[in-house]
Amino acid sequence: MKSYNVAVAGVTGAVGQEMLKILEERNFPVKQLKPLASQRSVGKIVTFRGEKIPVEILSTESFQGMDFALFSAGASISKEFAPLAGQEGCIVIDNSSAFRQDPDVPLIIPEVNPGAIVDFRKKNIIANPNCTTIVTIVPLKPLHDYGRIKRVVASSYQAASGAGAKAMQELEDQVKEYAFGREMVAGVFPYQIAFNLIPQVDVFLDNFYSKEEMKMVWETRKIMGEPDLQITATCVRVPVLRAHSVSVNIETEKKITRDKAIELLSAFPGVTVQDDPANRVYPMPWLVSGKDNCYVGRIREDISCPNGLTLWSVGDQIRKGAALNAIQIAELLIEKKLV
Amino acid sequence: MKSYNVAVAGVTGAVGQEMLKILEERNFPVKQLKPLASQRSVGKIVTFRGEKIPVEILSTESFQGMDFALFSAGASISKEFAPLAGQEGCIVIDNSSAFRQDPDVPLIIPEVNPGAIVDFRKKNIIANPNCTTIVTIVPLKPLHDYGRIKRVVASSYQAASGAGAKAMQELEDQVKEYAFGREMVAGVFPYQIAFNLIPQVDVFLDNFYSKEEMKMVWETRKIMGEPDLQITATCVRVPVLRAHSVSVNIETEKKITRDKAIELLSAFPGVTVQDDPANRVYPMPWLVSGKDNCYVGRIREDISCPNGLTLWSVGDQIRKGAALNAIQIAELLIEKKLV
Repeated sequence: MKSYNVAVAGVTGAVGQEMLKILEERNFPVKQLKPLASQRSVGKIVTFRGEKIPVEILSTESFQGMDFALFSAGASISKEFAPLAGQEGCIVIDNSSAFRQDPDVPLIIPEVNPGAIVDFRKKNIIANPNCTTIVTIVPLKPLHDYGRIKRVVASSYQAASGAGAKAMQELEDQVKEYAFGREMVAGVFPYQIAFNLIPQVDVFLDNFYSKEEMKMVWETRKIMGEPDLQITATCVRVPVLRAHSVSVNIETEKKITRDKAIELLSAFPGVTVQDDPANRVYPMPWLVSGKDNCYVGRIREDISCPNGLTLWSVGDQIRKGAALNAIQIAELLIEKKLV
Repeated sequence: MKSYNVAVAGVTGAVGQEMLKILEERNFPVKQLKPLASQRSVGKIVTFRGEKIPVEILSTESFQGMDFALFSAGASISKEFAPLAGQEGCIVIDNSSAFRQDPDVPLIIPEVNPGAIVDFRKKNIIANPNCTTIVTIVPLKPLHDYGRIKRVVASSYQAASGAGAKAMQELEDQVKEYAFGREMVAGVFPYQIAFNLIPQVDVFLDNFYSKEEMKMVWETRKIMGEPDLQITATCVRVPVLRAHSVSVNIETEKKITRDKAIELLSAFPGVTVQDDPANRVYPMPWLVSGKDNCYVGRIREDISCPNGLTLWSVGDQIRKGAALNAIQIAELLIEKKLV
């Protein structure tokens, strides 16, 4: 079986670390692993398949001879290095927002729009969607295929992990400070996140939506291939460690009953239906942490709208929302013999 | 000035305790205070205006000579004792769900539907709405009066306090257990609430909505006097101590711009607008705890719907969501010279 040289840029972050774990778990055919990070991480060592590998500084030379580069080091690093890597024939799978709206860059969730991947050769870059978008769209795809979604109203409950490893640490630290009766200090988040909710994820735009909220709009349209799909979202940070939850209300052209929705969702790859409310079965972030699928529950016909349907989707932000989806994109390229 | 004999049933609970505090803070004209609770609380003492008063067992005799009885001891206690108290001429303000749908019982938010209070004489009972309903409706009222709301889609982020003092303690205990590296134990909530979200508040009904979600539907229609208003809600418990937050999306008959909404909300009693997102000004439960008003922010025109508007409302569940609203109802009766 063919194997590949894989660079991971941003390897010391929460998503980078999870990428190594997932490459191992899924027996991704790695020939050589090249862990890359910024100057700050010089001297760090990562362990991959039992082997200790020193972290290298990300540079213009880093991608020579690499087949894949998984980027998770922020949009500015991606903008600087991803095109270079691509020009050298290395396929970049980029977890940042840098190229998601680029018409020459496919934006892929393998379960949702695998066909769109064939266009990757223009820049040798494939973009990994925003984590909240992934957790929202995976369950919407089979519903859209059946009943055609006209409008989506979403409210998110986003874990600290979406802001990185330091943000998760900040939540843990604040909780400990509280337990020990000390003052809770905020640094990564603009305000205390323990026992609190922050209705801001990313910066605000001219229309008073946050960029995170508009990413859900822009990316959903691109991934679904529906430029006119109507979407509104409110994105909120909650004191949860690593799984994102979304309360989603949709209106469809064709009525979708609860039973039909359960049937469609149960048959869809990447979705686990957990929906038996009378027995207190519904998805919760604490239990979905570390899981691969999007967990969907609270499925019900909307009493306020003839063709409305409401559901609750929870997905591990670091796995399906980031690292896992990126590696599934690489697997898809291999499966389709595009690499 | 006339003063009144006030009984507080359920005085040892989170809401009962807050009622005493608010009666003091607002200089409510209390002649005699009678603290009432169940057998379990015998021997407990409450402090009111510096005076120590022993808690009495709630009984059929408790309401003789009382002018007001503030009930916050659960629906079954209210069903048993509120009608008795009412028959003896004592005006019951009931914080439970027992009488909210009774056509002979007004359901009142003083800022929203003060006029409806005049019907209270049929049973001498006035119902206090559900806490999440209050936090949602207070800001909707001026928007409805201006633009006529057709549909509401709400997702709640409900604090532990909504399940009582023991539930708040459970969240604090779990956080401490986590900080000390011990197992987190659930008791009041069906699952761990620290670092988690539970998409269940109250029991589930045949339409797969929870009772809490349907309370928002039923109570909003009754309070607004709009039996055909279309509402859907998803209610979620979050690891926050005592303020509820709601992400609310509305469609109106007449377009409401962001500026108009801010103007209407700023002028409405009981609402504080906190909306300057570029400067990170928006309501958060940690800072709204202990406050009287509903704090409203993230106000914006919905990009998915021509006459849509989206906002984020946060209110202290124990105060405006329960104890304060009950006492404001009593004040309204006095103000209108109905007592």
